[in-house]
Amino acid sequence: MDTSAFADGAAYVKGRFVPIAEASIPVTDWGFTRSDAVYDVVHVFRGGFFRLDDHLDRFMHSMQARRLRPPEDRAAIEAVLHRCVALAGLDDAYVAMVASRGRPRVAGSRRPEDCENHLIAYAIPWIDVIPKPVQERGAHLWIGSTPRVPDASVDPTVKNYQWSDLTSGLLEAHDNGFDTAVLCDAEGFVTEGPGFNIFVVKDGRVLTPDRGSLHGITRKSVLELCEQMGIPAAVAPLRREVLEDADEVFAATTAGGVMPASRVGRRILGNDRPGPVSLALKEAYWRRHAEGWHRTPVRPLEA
Amino acid sequence: MDTSAFADGAAYVKGRFVPIAEASIPVTDWGFTRSDAVYDVVHVFRGGFFRLDDHLDRFMHSMQARRLRPPEDRAAIEAVLHRCVALAGLDDAYVAMVASRGRPRVAGSRRPEDCENHLIAYAIPWIDVIPKPVQERGAHLWIGSTPRVPDASVDPTVKNYQWSDLTSGLLEAHDNGFDTAVLCDAEGFVTEGPGFNIFVVKDGRVLTPDRGSLHGITRKSVLELCEQMGIPAAVAPLRREVLEDADEVFAATTAGGVMPASRVGRRILGNDRPGPVSLALKEAYWRRHAEGWHRTPVRPLEA
Repeated sequence: MDTSAFADGAAYVKGRFVPIAEASIPVTDWGFTRSDAVYDVVHVFRGGFFRLDDHLDRFMHSMQARRLRPPEDRAAIEAVLHRCVALAGLDDAYVAMVASRGRPRVAGSRRPEDCENHLIAYAIPWIDVIPKPVQERGAHLWIGSTPRVPDASVDPTVKNYQWSDLTSGLLEAHDNGFDTAVLCDAEGFVTEGPGFNIFVVKDGRVLTPDRGSLHGITRKSVLELCEQMGIPAAVAPLRREVLEDADEVFAATTAGGVMPASRVGRRILGNDRPGPVSLALKEAYWRRHAEGWHRTPVRPLEA
Repeated sequence: MDTSAFADGAAYVKGRFVPIAEASIPVTDWGFTRSDAVYDVVHVFRGGFFRLDDHLDRFMHSMQARRLRPPEDRAAIEAVLHRCVALAGLDDAYVAMVASRGRPRVAGSRRPEDCENHLIAYAIPWIDVIPKPVQERGAHLWIGSTPRVPDASVDPTVKNYQWSDLTSGLLEAHDNGFDTAVLCDAEGFVTEGPGFNIFVVKDGRVLTPDRGSLHGITRKSVLELCEQMGIPAAVAPLRREVLEDADEVFAATTAGGVMPASRVGRRILGNDRPGPVSLALKEAYWRRHAEGWHRTPVRPLEA
């Protein structure tokens, strides 16, 4: 099979596999016009998905929470992801799955229940949320002045595209010469950043917020690594002052793994370099990948 | 010119006019993957735009607030809207304009500043937010249990697609056999519904919320009509109890005009029929349309 058309990425839209450049949705799809969609992103490292089942579990949970029911069941979704990666011929990939509300089956209806939900998926070359050179020196994190949308209004554990508060933080970070942002909620508790969970290290303990945040799969991996490495760790309420007073800070995300910070706001952490606990977790995270931790080999096209 | 291909609607995407069925955006456009877009909707009634300048003012404001800068200036956007309507050959139309973040010019960038913003526009046949028969009997409004996203997190005067809280209210309304929903904020103040502003009539006064709401153009029209008709009216904080205890309630939106309600939650208003003030405002709203109020004739294709 000639897969050269898929070299920049492969997508699945309306039941067909297409080159990424041809993958689109109608401008009238409610996934766009109401941001009525959920998604997930799993990565492929050296030919294997990382924690694919965890990502599929979360994606199924997100779809159920928003009552999105594309025609493909879980096994079919999994097969689509494998095929996207195989068509694109990527050893390392960023693999997205999206369920969109679609458009009403009945013309003129304004009822979500009347819409034809559909699945989109695509595999494209790896994207780091924070560029590698920035990860090396340690990210400079800005604490955004826009409060994170409350959990009661939009459930952050249902992975969604409603990034306006996060984008506001990101723009403000860039205005101030920082790499990216972390948002607090209106009560002053730390939540997350645009595309990542946040962790602090204080007096040898690792902490990550209990609210306003996605239940990140990388977050889960970090907590598992902490346990394996004998580092005390907890999911807990985390006030802004704790973030500002941390010994170390790092971000965690599928698209980048463990990404140490070296500055938080005007505060310089440690030696203005990534801290030792962050680096140890980062090293372990990638070493375990190489050892095949939670790995599902990508099925070749012939299969 | 043969415009038959545009009979279902005409769109403008990436500088080209296309039939609505062909109007799409890439699945990797940040307008979709981060809901990083603003929009506006103006209507055409019997061949004329209603308050086109007000809609363009608001759209320019929304774009500026989110730093979205498509290549088309205001005059070019206006010309695109005229041409979409003329191509579709519609006397009555729903006309949308959208500014989307687009995709990074630099592959792999995660910076909004690096993206190529773009304009989308389309004219399609009229859609009422609340179907006409429901408007006749009076809409049944459910007061949603999901709190509206706070203004500090996402500015509701910047017209956006982040409808998750509104969609939650809508699904809950339908579950309970109601037509649509109104949301309150976490402090118990009334905000708006999915696609409309809300008004109450109490002791001869007309009130609409001062927070959590779009500055609706139809809302503005209603306030002008109240002044012309000698009805006291105000934009004010509006507690949930005031909505539940109102003499009359109506919704106001571009896609439907003034739409009276006859039930709010379990409460039946008046005679379970639209109230007299609501009906007088509705009648005046459409009569003034027929008289050419705030009308901009759609430019024919030859122009």
